Amino acid sequence: MPVVGMAGGGQLARMTQQAAIALGVRLRVLAGSPDESAAQVVADVRVGDDRAQADLNAFAKGCDVVTFDHEHVPGDHIRELEDAGVPCRPGAAALAHAQDKLVMRERLSGLGAPCPAYAHVPAAAPLAFLEAFAREHGWPLVLKATRGGYDGKGVWVAEGLDRATAELVGRLVAEGVDLMVEEHVPFRRELAALVARSPYGQGAAYPIVETVQEGGICVEVISPAPGLSADLAAEAQSLALRIADELGVVGLLAVELFETSGGLLVNELAMRPHNSGHWTIEGARTSQFEQHLRAVLDLPLGSTEPTAPYTVMANVLGGDDPDVYPRYIHVMAHDPGVKVHFYGKGVRPGRKIGHVTALGSDLAEVRERARHAAAYLRWGPAMGEGR
Amino acid sequence: MPVVGMAGGGQLARMTQQAAIALGVRLRVLAGSPDESAAQVVADVRVGDDRAQADLNAFAKGCDVVTFDHEHVPGDHIRELEDAGVPCRPGAAALAHAQDKLVMRERLSGLGAPCPAYAHVPAAAPLAFLEAFAREHGWPLVLKATRGGYDGKGVWVAEGLDRATAELVGRLVAEGVDLMVEEHVPFRRELAALVARSPYGQGAAYPIVETVQEGGICVEVISPAPGLSADLAAEAQSLALRIADELGVVGLLAVELFETSGGLLVNELAMRPHNSGHWTIEGARTSQFEQHLRAVLDLPLGSTEPTAPYTVMANVLGGDDPDVYPRYIHVMAHDPGVKVHFYGKGVRPGRKIGHVTALGSDLAEVRERARHAAAYLRWGPAMGEGR
Repeated sequence: MPVVGMAGGGQLARMTQQAAIALGVRLRVLAGSPDESAAQVVADVRVGDDRAQADLNAFAKGCDVVTFDHEHVPGDHIRELEDAGVPCRPGAAALAHAQDKLVMRERLSGLGAPCPAYAHVPAAAPLAFLEAFAREHGWPLVLKATRGGYDGKGVWVAEGLDRATAELVGRLVAEGVDLMVEEHVPFRRELAALVARSPYGQGAAYPIVETVQEGGICVEVISPAPGLSADLAAEAQSLALRIADELGVVGLLAVELFETSGGLLVNELAMRPHNSGHWTIEGARTSQFEQHLRAVLDLPLGSTEPTAPYTVMANVLGGDDPDVYPRYIHVMAHDPGVKVHFYGKGVRPGRKIGHVTALGSDLAEVRERARHAAAYLRWGPAMGEGR
Repeated sequence: MPVVGMAGGGQLARMTQQAAIALGVRLRVLAGSPDESAAQVVADVRVGDDRAQADLNAFAKGCDVVTFDHEHVPGDHIRELEDAGVPCRPGAAALAHAQDKLVMRERLSGLGAPCPAYAHVPAAAPLAFLEAFAREHGWPLVLKATRGGYDGKGVWVAEGLDRATAELVGRLVAEGVDLMVEEHVPFRRELAALVARSPYGQGAAYPIVETVQEGGICVEVISPAPGLSADLAAEAQSLALRIADELGVVGLLAVELFETSGGLLVNELAMRPHNSGHWTIEGARTSQFEQHLRAVLDLPLGSTEPTAPYTVMANVLGGDDPDVYPRYIHVMAHDPGVKVHFYGKGVRPGRKIGHVTALGSDLAEVRERARHAAAYLRWGPAMGEGR
């Protein structure tokens, strides 16, 4: 049986282990410590730094394929693995588009994929540049670090050419953060298109979902996106499959989208199992984690057929009380059908520590079930007392 | 988060790990070697002998609850753990009924549960005893070792008072095998009732399934049992829930049943996740593995609602070719909806090395899909060439 190495020991690697167990595939993870989410549940853990070449090289030895739990492994390191003959999926060339937002925008624009207006912000006279950009696209503007952001980190909204913006930009430039600017898109809602692509070239698309964000963090995913027209859903799936193909993605590709009055715009790309696909564990015939393994192993892809009319995933964010387990009793007694997923991570306020999934045919009821479970797990018994 | 210790490193512990990962529960296994099925996929593996008190004691230290992947841990050892304050679920008193077929028959008969006629076979003059038993119940008779059997091992059919029977009985008595005899039940088919019970006393019953055996090994499970009347299904569920309650089972109880023209008869009991429940991974809202964890942790039990009109599980038995993985390509390309489960076990002819699951609304089609996948994984590409 093949050995799949996953660099990174977070919850995506942890949930990939569930799929690897079924397939009989050996999962090896490179984790920063033996306490990390995936390291708790995998037999073959290598502790090391997934941003260090030597650790990556040692980790990759004996792996049939190497893949990633996040985007932070430097492209140069991945290229060195590839040059040494290690199949990396996705490869460095594809992954660059998920690692650098400017590279992604330039490539997608070149492909004619619909994107917000954007520009690279020069480190010299950045405010004058922003003022000129705003003359064309209006305030507010969205500032992004080209590299290193996730979960709303590395993204800022600048309301105008005011003191706050001047201070923010000044600080970021002083810190050496490479910045880009985008128009602030007045979107109706956010959608996500999740597809898989294998080296053979097979593609598979999941139903288009709606993602609900709060404070830059995804709190809820609804599958399928309610009320989305069949045309727009097909357009989003085709767009994601085309991007996967053009960029040579192997594995999963999540395309975060804005739905606007003028159509769809691409927001971000991720090339790995994605928060917007956690619903597939129960809600699709093939979970995104199994699909990712099948894709990177060049196995035929699995059915993406939904298992219920609606599936809703709600993220569980850490609250004030670190002791979540006693709250299982209420959540499970209240709703025997809700599925609880915990990541084995330390509880910090606002940190994603797990998720819950509900499914059924009445969307309002399914959303309420998922929200109740997630909120209760976050806040605990005191939530009803005004906390 | 609690630590659940599971004695035994087989595929049941392996699949329990998938459920433990979701619940955030720590699974520790006591495995005979680091190569065993579950030991390959669990971070916290203790290598030792689960039939040795010292190894069990060391293993149990730090576990919040101890449970079992099989029935072969001696009852005395479990009682010693219980006396030391370790919660064992199921406990020794309940587990005795899954460890000793005579104890089970006596207790179930005492409860008025329908059983085949049975008797303990004395080691002195066993053939005369069998002859007398046969005068009342007719030949053939079923001989069973009271302890230690599984998967058809420890069960023999005696056709008459002939040389074969005399030799078999003589050999078994000489080996010190404690024997019982049962009437040979002319059953229509075999069914299984899977239920869970928590220390709190909550019970949950899965749909009644049909199990198809070949050579004493279960090869196929169909959920729900086709054409079973609602009355008989409810009777089977009630019977299993009552047995779980009367015997004080905590965790899962599988009741293997004969469906006869005169009604249901209990064949065997198992108190753990069971082959007849593997279909629940995809086919029920709560898998039997999650349910077992919830029960032994005294959490509220999960919904047993089916996810499809029909789910069929087919066991994958080892064939002549030990290299199964290359056959994934055909199976997955042929049917993107079939789910493959491999146990990481060495391939030996006839050994259970995995299973496949298909589900849908057309039973004949679903059975054919599961059978095709299992047969192909067993025999490989040459199967169509008359092997």
